[in-house]
Amino acid sequence: MAPLKVGIAGLGTVGAEVVRLIEEQGRLLSARSGRGIRVVAVTARSKVKKRGVNLRGIEWAKSPLALATDPNVDCFVELMGGSGDPAFSAIEAALKAGKSVVTANKALIARHGIRLAKAAEKHGGTLNFEAAVAGGIPIIKTLREGLAGTTVNRVYGILNGTCNYILSRMEQEGLTFAECLKDAQRLGYAEANPSFDVDGHDTAQKLAILASLAFGTKVSQSAIYVEGISSIKPEDLRAAEELGYRVKLLGVAVRTAKGIEQRVHPTMVPKSSSIAQVMGVTNAVTIDGEGIPPITLVGPGAGGAATAASVIADIADIARGVHTTPFGRPVEKLRETKKAPMERHEGGYYIRLMARDVAGTAAKIATHLAKEKISLESIVQRHPDGIDPTGAGKSSPMPIILITYATHEDAVRRALAAVQHDKIINGKPQVIRIEKN
Amino acid sequence: MAPLKVGIAGLGTVGAEVVRLIEEQGRLLSARSGRGIRVVAVTARSKVKKRGVNLRGIEWAKSPLALATDPNVDCFVELMGGSGDPAFSAIEAALKAGKSVVTANKALIARHGIRLAKAAEKHGGTLNFEAAVAGGIPIIKTLREGLAGTTVNRVYGILNGTCNYILSRMEQEGLTFAECLKDAQRLGYAEANPSFDVDGHDTAQKLAILASLAFGTKVSQSAIYVEGISSIKPEDLRAAEELGYRVKLLGVAVRTAKGIEQRVHPTMVPKSSSIAQVMGVTNAVTIDGEGIPPITLVGPGAGGAATAASVIADIADIARGVHTTPFGRPVEKLRETKKAPMERHEGGYYIRLMARDVAGTAAKIATHLAKEKISLESIVQRHPDGIDPTGAGKSSPMPIILITYATHEDAVRRALAAVQHDKIINGKPQVIRIEKN
Repeated sequence: MAPLKVGIAGLGTVGAEVVRLIEEQGRLLSARSGRGIRVVAVTARSKVKKRGVNLRGIEWAKSPLALATDPNVDCFVELMGGSGDPAFSAIEAALKAGKSVVTANKALIARHGIRLAKAAEKHGGTLNFEAAVAGGIPIIKTLREGLAGTTVNRVYGILNGTCNYILSRMEQEGLTFAECLKDAQRLGYAEANPSFDVDGHDTAQKLAILASLAFGTKVSQSAIYVEGISSIKPEDLRAAEELGYRVKLLGVAVRTAKGIEQRVHPTMVPKSSSIAQVMGVTNAVTIDGEGIPPITLVGPGAGGAATAASVIADIADIARGVHTTPFGRPVEKLRETKKAPMERHEGGYYIRLMARDVAGTAAKIATHLAKEKISLESIVQRHPDGIDPTGAGKSSPMPIILITYATHEDAVRRALAAVQHDKIINGKPQVIRIEKN
Repeated sequence: MAPLKVGIAGLGTVGAEVVRLIEEQGRLLSARSGRGIRVVAVTARSKVKKRGVNLRGIEWAKSPLALATDPNVDCFVELMGGSGDPAFSAIEAALKAGKSVVTANKALIARHGIRLAKAAEKHGGTLNFEAAVAGGIPIIKTLREGLAGTTVNRVYGILNGTCNYILSRMEQEGLTFAECLKDAQRLGYAEANPSFDVDGHDTAQKLAILASLAFGTKVSQSAIYVEGISSIKPEDLRAAEELGYRVKLLGVAVRTAKGIEQRVHPTMVPKSSSIAQVMGVTNAVTIDGEGIPPITLVGPGAGGAATAASVIADIADIARGVHTTPFGRPVEKLRETKKAPMERHEGGYYIRLMARDVAGTAAKIATHLAKEKISLESIVQRHPDGIDPTGAGKSSPMPIILITYATHEDAVRRALAAVQHDKIINGKPQVIRIEKN
């Protein structure tokens, strides 16, 4: 069979690595996929930039769109990024021309995935995006193919290495969020404008894709509740540690009686869970299937080589003639996401309050919680720096840490609003949701 | 498209669950695979046994072979087990008749995998065996397809739930191997004759399959060094804990300069590694790819529902028309396994010796190790039950625990033979290999 002719748009770290791997591993790849794979054309913003790969004999296309519609290209690989053009138009044009497409672009798939999947189905092409979520972990393939016979009840994970790096260092070294963010930026783990990562939006885009594959619903970013990690304090991580938990930024999608609940927020997970062990920039995803114990995949979430390996696996699948619908079933069978409102979320909560005057405050807080039928699993009054509050420390605010049994989010919100209304605490209550395994 | 007609041989826990899942999840499955899936015929030893599934409208074949060659069957599913007949002949007959085959039979694939893969290739069928290794974890698909572009340097894991259950309980409760084995048998985790599990043979069969997929070599059980867990003592687990390790029965296949080293033995793994966190009957596999951080998959290694889910995923792939070579590349491209001899294994070692007379013994042991150029990372002389050996305890044997830096297996063997020859220790030295992540 003639080799699969690949065109690559975008020659950053990942794109250059893909070119290099296809050249170096040509024989391995053709043995594995039963068909040769050859890069015939590329394009990128700069033609002259040094990339450390040999582009001799490879055509330079004048634009992503020209590459996507080049009759000499069988498989269009989009590695430019960005949720709009030129990536979107180029991918759509390639699919409309009957080509297969591989992309690592989570933003684009989260935003336009359904429209592109329709185009792929209509014109008989394949749309693969393994590298879009948890870079080097084969989570898309696992959900799409490996669990074809499993009814998924929950999928959750650490999908952003930057946040996990920051939380791991805060926990291990007792540092503040700001200190760890600065280090992450210095090490290249975080952008100059870190909001997209630390505010949870990157995780939300990835979660939207996983939820669609897991539950057969249409990708919908707007169905996701999002909360970032910037409010997490070292004292929260210390308290978590003492209570047997770790704090992770999780993306969680779970089937409930009220619909599919999709949420991104700092989460307390039991220290013994697989996901709690995942430190640093590593990613992890856990899948709870009906009637079976959880499956967890752990591995690199980013990095040129890991991402490129996933792109190559997607290309090899196309070379082998594997044809799957992009979201695991035809678009017409994907249901609209019924969004479970966050106020109806049920679970345990960690609540940290700075009580102004301890003696009366604890009782008042307890009354407000009781009014909302919230039961407490534990309550810890923490003497800051070991000062005994019965003595000189009496006037300084004292942290009270509550762990609730499973309750409703709106009950927690109402109880804490009442506490704030009483003016018995300083600042805002800190609330972290607990996720049991 | 006409539905895929499935014939199932073997209606134990897994077989019955597969029938039930196909019936219950018919719509989900056809949405996911783009084609209906229907069980048209079954066979098992007893036709009258109660199985809790509805077999009405399903033909009862008079033998596995008759089912395998039934012209009405597109896909033959073998769930009888056993490395010989009737499973082997039935699968071969089905493949020769151009059918696709799904099996959960590790013993058969480890023994006859290459011959069956040849038959599949020759007659255009598919041979899928996701459930054969680590039951509910999609490790076959990950190695075969998800890492198509990755050069694997090492694959290792906890592949036997019985052994991990025993070691976990020994560690957590300070019990002996015999006590935990008895409990495992009572709970149904271990067979009446536990040798196949606890002596490492089950792990070896699974490792042989993983190694073939990872390195593109022919499955070869005889290339594997095998050692079980029955010699592990609670004091080894205690010492491991103190030194920052846990003991797991691992199957390890690693690319070395001398060939592919394949080994099954109790192994000390750093407590911080993903694999060390895996407790109880859970399985886990870690893959080290060239230039990328490790990927670890954790999940159920056995159990009817988890195994059945993997069988269903294999059937769904066949329904979708996914065609892969059984070992990830054509049989003619699989190399003969070049077995790296265990004597040339390089790594760190944990050694526990019962010294007869402490004063002179430590020095003599050190001399023997130095003669073999073995350097020590740590040495611990342990006073049993806190008795001070300078006092009354002097005559009772005292454990000496050594952790070596990386050295050669044959050097360790020679040094310990010399120590034994000196008659300065009681009994045999305990040796546990260390695997770094």
